[in-house]
Amino acid sequence: MTVCSGFIKISTNGLNDIHNITTEVSRFVKKNKLVEGQLLIAINGSTAALSTIEYEPGLIRDLPAMLDKIAPMNKTYHHDETWHDGNGYAHLRSTLMGTSYMVPVINGELVLGTWQQIIFIDFDNRSRHREITLQFVGETNE
Amino acid sequence: MTVCSGFIKISTNGLNDIHNITTEVSRFVKKNKLVEGQLLIAINGSTAALSTIEYEPGLIRDLPAMLDKIAPMNKTYHHDETWHDGNGYAHLRSTLMGTSYMVPVINGELVLGTWQQIIFIDFDNRSRHREITLQFVGETNE
Amino acid sequence: MTVCSGFIKISTNGLNDIHNITTEVSRFVKKNKLVEGQLLIAINGSTAALSTIEYEPGLIRDLPAMLDKIAPMNKTYHHDETWHDGNGYAHLRSTLMGTSYMVPVINGELVLGTWQQIIFIDFDNRSRHREITLQFVGETNE
Repeated sequence: MTVCSGFIKISTNGLNDIHNITTEVSRFVKKNKLVEGQLLIAINGSTAALSTIEYEPGLIRDLPAMLDKIAPMNKTYHHDETWHDGNGYAHLRSTLMGTSYMVPVINGELVLGTWQQIIFIDFDNRSRHREITLQFVGETNE
Repeated sequence: MTVCSGFIKISTNGLNDIHNITTEVSRFVKKNKLVEGQLLIAINGSTAALSTIEYEPGLIRDLPAMLDKIAPMNKTYHHDETWHDGNGYAHLRSTLMGTSYMVPVINGELVLGTWQQIIFIDFDNRSRHREITLQFVGETNE
Repeated sequence: MTVCSGFIKISTNGLNDIHNITTEVSRFVKKNKLVEGQLLIAINGSTAALSTIEYEPGLIRDLPAMLDKIAPMNKTYHHDETWHDGNGYAHLRSTLMGTSYMVPVINGELVLGTWQQIIFIDFDNRSRHREITLQFVGETNE
């Protein structure tokens, strides 16, 4: 049993920029010869989220549209009274969706559906450089 | 310390079919003599979700009603332009709620409230056969 | 590798009472000399949730306002037909946001952003005494 941590660096455009990070996460699994255990994917920050989706152009438009009904971008939030930075919607979306995600690893593979990809969403209202943490606890072939 | 993985197979009717899987998850804990550690419950797929709820008939009607305000079933999504399969709402609900869930195990028992049950929700617009992954990392009595 | 479990006790006012528990969680990390691994934070109950947020007065008002659009407090739910306790909104918010949260620990520190705090939200419509479970799996310095 071992714990194995790593990072993915990513540059985003913000404004609900959705990145498919499945390939990078799979590379982490292969490179570290992970066999069976729990993989935690986490973003440090309060204006982004992690989840899974069928990564295709339609849903990539539908997801921000759905979130805009819940926490509209063009609304003034009390958050602006504190910081005047206009990204209250981004904080609320992050809190609702969550900044960490768990995926099981079995037989050296991520347990995901064929049409299920791991996504990082940057809600912030400006471009950002982000660091995503990958952390595995379980059995490896090292 | 050990990692222990297993599966639950389930047939669903889709259309926001909500299954209380607490008994099956508890059986996995007992059968494998799990004592203390983290239990990951995950579904591979992009039109379903896992969560907890007080599993009683009222909330089982209230939950789909709430989700229908967020991602209505009778709306046309950009997803349909890709696949024409009419289940855009199901993908969005899955991405929002998440496809994995963590429950601690202490003293050989799931740490859940008396009125808190683990549920699997199949949002897809057709009946499905699903496989739910259970994966524990921690101490066992084996 | 070890598993280490503990508890935080908290008294809440209910009605979407939001508590910043980051200090208590950090104290657990320090006290148990946790170095590298996965920290699970979980609440047993079906009317509360865990997440992260920038804990400042504006967002603490914005978050309940957003949730009141999704699951209004002043609406009658089918849940009331079962229990007549008027907290259907609280159950739905808990199911949507989730009752557990994962944070990585690296180099003896929680991996969180500077403006990202761990919060416990009690949605219930009365004051409550709550017990939050903290459970770490990974390497320690003990």
